[in-house]
Amino acid sequence: MPDDGSAEDRLIARYFRPLATSPGAFGLADDAAILTPPPGCDLVLTTDGVIAGVHFLPHDPPGLIARKVLRMNLSDLAAKGARPAGFLLSVALPANIEERWIAAFAQGLGQDAQAYGCPLLGGDTDHTPGPLAITVAAFGTVPHGKMVRRAGARVGNAVVVTGTIGDAALGVLQHKDNSLGKRWGVSGEQSDYLTTRYLLPEPRTALAEALLQHASAAMDVSDGLVGDLAKLARASGVAAEIDVTRVPVSDAARAALAADAALIDTILTGGDDYEILLTLPPQRLDAFRAAAQQAGVPVGEIGRVTAGQGARFMRDGKALAFARPSYSHF
Amino acid sequence: MPDDGSAEDRLIARYFRPLATSPGAFGLADDAAILTPPPGCDLVLTTDGVIAGVHFLPHDPPGLIARKVLRMNLSDLAAKGARPAGFLLSVALPANIEERWIAAFAQGLGQDAQAYGCPLLGGDTDHTPGPLAITVAAFGTVPHGKMVRRAGARVGNAVVVTGTIGDAALGVLQHKDNSLGKRWGVSGEQSDYLTTRYLLPEPRTALAEALLQHASAAMDVSDGLVGDLAKLARASGVAAEIDVTRVPVSDAARAALAADAALIDTILTGGDDYEILLTLPPQRLDAFRAAAQQAGVPVGEIGRVTAGQGARFMRDGKALAFARPSYSHF
Repeated sequence: MPDDGSAEDRLIARYFRPLATSPGAFGLADDAAILTPPPGCDLVLTTDGVIAGVHFLPHDPPGLIARKVLRMNLSDLAAKGARPAGFLLSVALPANIEERWIAAFAQGLGQDAQAYGCPLLGGDTDHTPGPLAITVAAFGTVPHGKMVRRAGARVGNAVVVTGTIGDAALGVLQHKDNSLGKRWGVSGEQSDYLTTRYLLPEPRTALAEALLQHASAAMDVSDGLVGDLAKLARASGVAAEIDVTRVPVSDAARAALAADAALIDTILTGGDDYEILLTLPPQRLDAFRAAAQQAGVPVGEIGRVTAGQGARFMRDGKALAFARPSYSHF
Repeated sequence: MPDDGSAEDRLIARYFRPLATSPGAFGLADDAAILTPPPGCDLVLTTDGVIAGVHFLPHDPPGLIARKVLRMNLSDLAAKGARPAGFLLSVALPANIEERWIAAFAQGLGQDAQAYGCPLLGGDTDHTPGPLAITVAAFGTVPHGKMVRRAGARVGNAVVVTGTIGDAALGVLQHKDNSLGKRWGVSGEQSDYLTTRYLLPEPRTALAEALLQHASAAMDVSDGLVGDLAKLARASGVAAEIDVTRVPVSDAARAALAADAALIDTILTGGDDYEILLTLPPQRLDAFRAAAQQAGVPVGEIGRVTAGQGARFMRDGKALAFARPSYSHF
């Protein structure tokens, strides 16, 4: 973080310094931060960012934008079995940014940094002639050599997902066109639920320990279940067969599906779920389910790892075909 | 890094995967990377980024843009006494980006990643409707508790800088207006030198060990010597008095100064030097000079740490006044 005494830098120091609660952040008054994993632990590193107009709408509440970009990174850490340790923040701000925007952004960021035990360690701020952009690099810790990989799925493993799939993909459609909820026949409450699932994902941090104990492979579902399962299968050198009727969907998504069956494509490929997709030996399912329940995270078995290549999503004995298997911001 | 089998992702995998030489990068085929400092060491974290039109010109050679943004981060690590360990890369690419741009960018990045022993650990790519933007988060290691802080300068310490100051500030002016070199009366060779100093800074990685041994405080000079010394003094709760005639300048800068004495302001406040500013007890000067010489890094003593507040740049017994003490991209 800059500290040259300019008005803008004082502004940033005022709002962001309170988030730098780790001694290794040096109150954002140095060029670098210190982070030291506990003895016997590896540091897990991930980075993910958002750009106005691409990943969020410019008028979205700044506190929610902040919380979402941090949670996107926390979701990656959770899927790897890592406990959050801290993050670096880079923000590119348009010249006309208002103090109240920065204040609300920092307030939301601080709320989640505290809730997830992931303090701000340092950062970089610049002005941009382009859209507002935020990049987070987040760090977590795992016991040495124990990070849960994508590349560990074995033939015969069960395939499991957390939570419900597709809510955020429906939520973002609704967020951009608020007549859709009515067309889908979802209630006001269900409509709010879908939008919230898009704006504020729930990283499955509480499940990290259970993943370390039981998962053979895991990743977070951020680019759509279909595409992300294909990635996990490719990294593991296996295939997977999913029973579409077992993919967990919310009541709201079920209502929308009843109105428009074609939405199954959106649900399975739409992305932004920030749930965890994992594989594990079937004999571990019961123990994993118990650990997940203890962590308060709903989980559902959706299929099996098979020999071969690719991920097939089966319904009525046939594999679904998808126009675009993976959501991409490209 | 994404890996969903799309054409663009395959492109990125082709060019960036060869840079991911650390086993902890998992060939960029996982959601996160692993980095574990050696026993007894802390991890030092820093982040710095660049935006087209703000920090570089859109037509600058992509390989140089890549090398500069990595070197900006390596300079921070060097100033903290840290040995490079790896980095995360986030790129926001305009939709019309060409494959040869990515190829040249990755080629330059890989060249310096190898030269400085700082492998790519992971990253994030997105398309942006705005200008091309690159963010690096870089990691280094220091013996536990030994990171060289900004906040360690003591009254009576000597103030030292590496290399020469102001070359990049003159270089960027020239880079934007190529008639300036002629007006300044610098030779073609000197003109090239100044531009190169702007486009490709030299992080003082070789000096990290000597800083750990001898420096009481250090930071890299990225926003101008005047402003950066003020920051170091503020963080340390001291003042500093600099003899302007002792600030090391290159032959090229000296020639430009002879043509236009007002350029002293640009030289001292212009930024982008990526030299190291440090303080140390005067009795350590000889040993530090010897260590710096062994590392091949020129160093010059430019003043003293004093009691009080602020940094004064003295010439002919008077303190210079600066219109804008610190270069800011804001």
